[in-house]
Amino acid sequence: MRSFAGRDILSLKDFERNEFFRVFEVAAELEPIARNRRNVDLLREKTLVTAFYQPSTRTRLAHEAAMLRLGGAVTGFADAKMTRAGDFYQESIKDTVKMLEFYGDVIVMRHFQIGAPHEAAQWASIPVINGGDGWGEHPTQILTDLYTVLREKGTIDGLRWVAVGDMRMRTMHSLGYALTQFDCPITFVAPPGMEMPDSYKEDFMAMGLDFDFADHVGDVIGDADVILVEPTVQPDYSKSRDERKGELPTTPDNYKITKDLLVNKAKSDAILLHSLPRMDEIPPDVDITRWSRYWQEAFNGVVMRMALLALVLGAME
Amino acid sequence: MRSFAGRDILSLKDFERNEFFRVFEVAAELEPIARNRRNVDLLREKTLVTAFYQPSTRTRLAHEAAMLRLGGAVTGFADAKMTRAGDFYQESIKDTVKMLEFYGDVIVMRHFQIGAPHEAAQWASIPVINGGDGWGEHPTQILTDLYTVLREKGTIDGLRWVAVGDMRMRTMHSLGYALTQFDCPITFVAPPGMEMPDSYKEDFMAMGLDFDFADHVGDVIGDADVILVEPTVQPDYSKSRDERKGELPTTPDNYKITKDLLVNKAKSDAILLHSLPRMDEIPPDVDITRWSRYWQEAFNGVVMRMALLALVLGAME
Amino acid sequence: MRSFAGRDILSLKDFERNEFFRVFEVAAELEPIARNRRNVDLLREKTLVTAFYQPSTRTRLAHEAAMLRLGGAVTGFADAKMTRAGDFYQESIKDTVKMLEFYGDVIVMRHFQIGAPHEAAQWASIPVINGGDGWGEHPTQILTDLYTVLREKGTIDGLRWVAVGDMRMRTMHSLGYALTQFDCPITFVAPPGMEMPDSYKEDFMAMGLDFDFADHVGDVIGDADVILVEPTVQPDYSKSRDERKGELPTTPDNYKITKDLLVNKAKSDAILLHSLPRMDEIPPDVDITRWSRYWQEAFNGVVMRMALLALVLGAME
Repeated sequence: MRSFAGRDILSLKDFERNEFFRVFEVAAELEPIARNRRNVDLLREKTLVTAFYQPSTRTRLAHEAAMLRLGGAVTGFADAKMTRAGDFYQESIKDTVKMLEFYGDVIVMRHFQIGAPHEAAQWASIPVINGGDGWGEHPTQILTDLYTVLREKGTIDGLRWVAVGDMRMRTMHSLGYALTQFDCPITFVAPPGMEMPDSYKEDFMAMGLDFDFADHVGDVIGDADVILVEPTVQPDYSKSRDERKGELPTTPDNYKITKDLLVNKAKSDAILLHSLPRMDEIPPDVDITRWSRYWQEAFNGVVMRMALLALVLGAME
Repeated sequence: MRSFAGRDILSLKDFERNEFFRVFEVAAELEPIARNRRNVDLLREKTLVTAFYQPSTRTRLAHEAAMLRLGGAVTGFADAKMTRAGDFYQESIKDTVKMLEFYGDVIVMRHFQIGAPHEAAQWASIPVINGGDGWGEHPTQILTDLYTVLREKGTIDGLRWVAVGDMRMRTMHSLGYALTQFDCPITFVAPPGMEMPDSYKEDFMAMGLDFDFADHVGDVIGDADVILVEPTVQPDYSKSRDERKGELPTTPDNYKITKDLLVNKAKSDAILLHSLPRMDEIPPDVDITRWSRYWQEAFNGVVMRMALLALVLGAME
Repeated sequence: MRSFAGRDILSLKDFERNEFFRVFEVAAELEPIARNRRNVDLLREKTLVTAFYQPSTRTRLAHEAAMLRLGGAVTGFADAKMTRAGDFYQESIKDTVKMLEFYGDVIVMRHFQIGAPHEAAQWASIPVINGGDGWGEHPTQILTDLYTVLREKGTIDGLRWVAVGDMRMRTMHSLGYALTQFDCPITFVAPPGMEMPDSYKEDFMAMGLDFDFADHVGDVIGDADVILVEPTVQPDYSKSRDERKGELPTTPDNYKITKDLLVNKAKSDAILLHSLPRMDEIPPDVDITRWSRYWQEAFNGVVMRMALLALVLGAME
């Protein structure tokens, strides 16, 4: 297995099965630190640089919280408008990275352009973690989700997935790549116009993923061991924030996970994941049902980033 | 006395007299750390999460500075627009808190909605500190003010207060609740349209506060031992920032604390408090008079947050 | 030599020759910490307050990264709009500083107004570092540049400078003041309308700087040992960001450093500096030539801020 020390985390396309398990092993080892709520000294000599060109709450703060739990320091920017890099000069990724690499020891980057973290990694002398690149990938989120499955179900192999959402979204691509390394059939459920792009379908086929598509989550939820949901509707951004106040979009039944649907059709031991934030695709009354695992997923989001930071910074080898 | 460990700081309505003194005792104990300007290790294993849905300088930075002085770490957001929580999804307080609680060990929240920190506290497994909730309360500011009085006057009981400002503002409500636990009569001086809301007046009466109202600060300042001032005018926000440049509003005499007024009418040992920022209600030539204590108040703002963080995180018991 | 402990870094006009060398000596001593990428404990008990009223990436993050490398803590604001200080109240520098001084042990301030950090320093009981004040100065950047020259050339004295850019910019003023303390003739090359203001020319003459002006960098680059470049064009800010997308301004030949120009005219051991970000005044194909030193300059930007923070906080004496 390739060492994780000094390695970039850009895509799950190049992750091998034993590498997934190494990450989960380290996550399990570090999890008690998060659970005990006591920051330790493991990364005390290290600094994380956050480079967020798009707003983010969970991804940015989960990385920061993870770094702080391990005793490290954090600097960076949470909004490209706050920097000359993003707004004024349309500075090249190269120029920005040839600066950021001196400000710390690992960079986590979210960018509106697909491939931006990959380009950053070409220039940086320190590891780059992809915190979401446009319509590309979101590897740390899917690693979180797989770890949650492992913790909640005791295994990843042999489980059937249903994924509901906009298949152009980055989490879906990382998910497809990840499941090629496990014995996990998956059904993707997406609205018209939000289908999985051909290039990803071709990759999944070439990599041996067992996948198909369905139009209505109700038709396939009964077989699912893991149900992963993302929004399929968005606020109407052509209106101002005030204009759309209270006017929330409505998710069609095809893509909505109601308590009724779960009670009537889901396996009793299936688990329901959502990286949040949500619109109405999972109503709040689902939160306290037996299926909900998205709060655990949020906790694991910190644990997974602890594992990845410790690994790429060479603290676990 | 109830333990402070694990406790939320949401309102001063539920603070008992001996709890105020416990907080002041801890503040006095920790004050030398701030005065000596040497960060210590008391909260070294802990992380503060700042959740500011409205801009703030003093409240946010005083909490951050306090956490850093005690060796703790800080993460969070300073502006809801920087997060998907605030801007895009209008995410529920519940969903946001079920994420934030994993990112640290105590949350300080400022929100434009009254009661938002209280709702957060219902969902969080860690303490929530109210950093100001809309027209609600601002408990940590008033604890700072009371501690400043105690340090400057040697006592709280037996002092007569005059409070000038917009009585719909949150500091005024926390002040009224706090003084019910001390032997402190208070006169509120507010412009028409900015009177104390009935619900607070009813609470104050039920809780035995000795309070009345006046129209002109000049009529009542002569009896005051403590003069607490807030703005009664605001910039004209219907104009753009450039349009209103240099065009500062003018506070009427009724609510203005000039050097002349102090020299002619105030007790020589009265003290003048203002949480700042100010408009023109206290002109700068008052700053070096014997009455001014607002810089000490700013220093005590850090000390008080050190005490509160140490207490709710269980480091002082 | 005056002690640096407790001292403000506002201007290079008052820097003496032996003080420059003291700063470079400390920078060289601390440089291995940055190079080894291991945060140490030198400033572990100290907090840096960042007060950025204008967006900045490099200056703000280089100070933060430096403080974290030395084990210190950081708080503050990256955007005046995030604070009530900047946007709502147009709070005075005095009022803001009489607050910030309690939040940490050293302040770095960037402000759109010339002289703002100087005014801050008058009120603060802790050191203030000028992170760029309007059309005034940018002392820490030029200290970085001089340190880069010393590291790359082994000396500062005896080298001939050419500086290309907008001479109304703050870096140019700090550069002129700095070179008065060394044996360094300099030629300033600026477009019409961007000439060096008379007040600075008068200062430079009074202080014995050996300087002249030229219209075309091609005429003078052949003699240069150090070429320092800044942008002479800017995006058209009267257009929205979308409107100007892809429509980048073009730097006239007079002020542009192309690979051809360097190959044909520059000394083979000249070095090329740019504080970045850049427009097109240095095309990317120059980056891997023998002249380019701007990445080293970015690294030294952290080292220099480590030295300055350690010095003014009294950790090196």
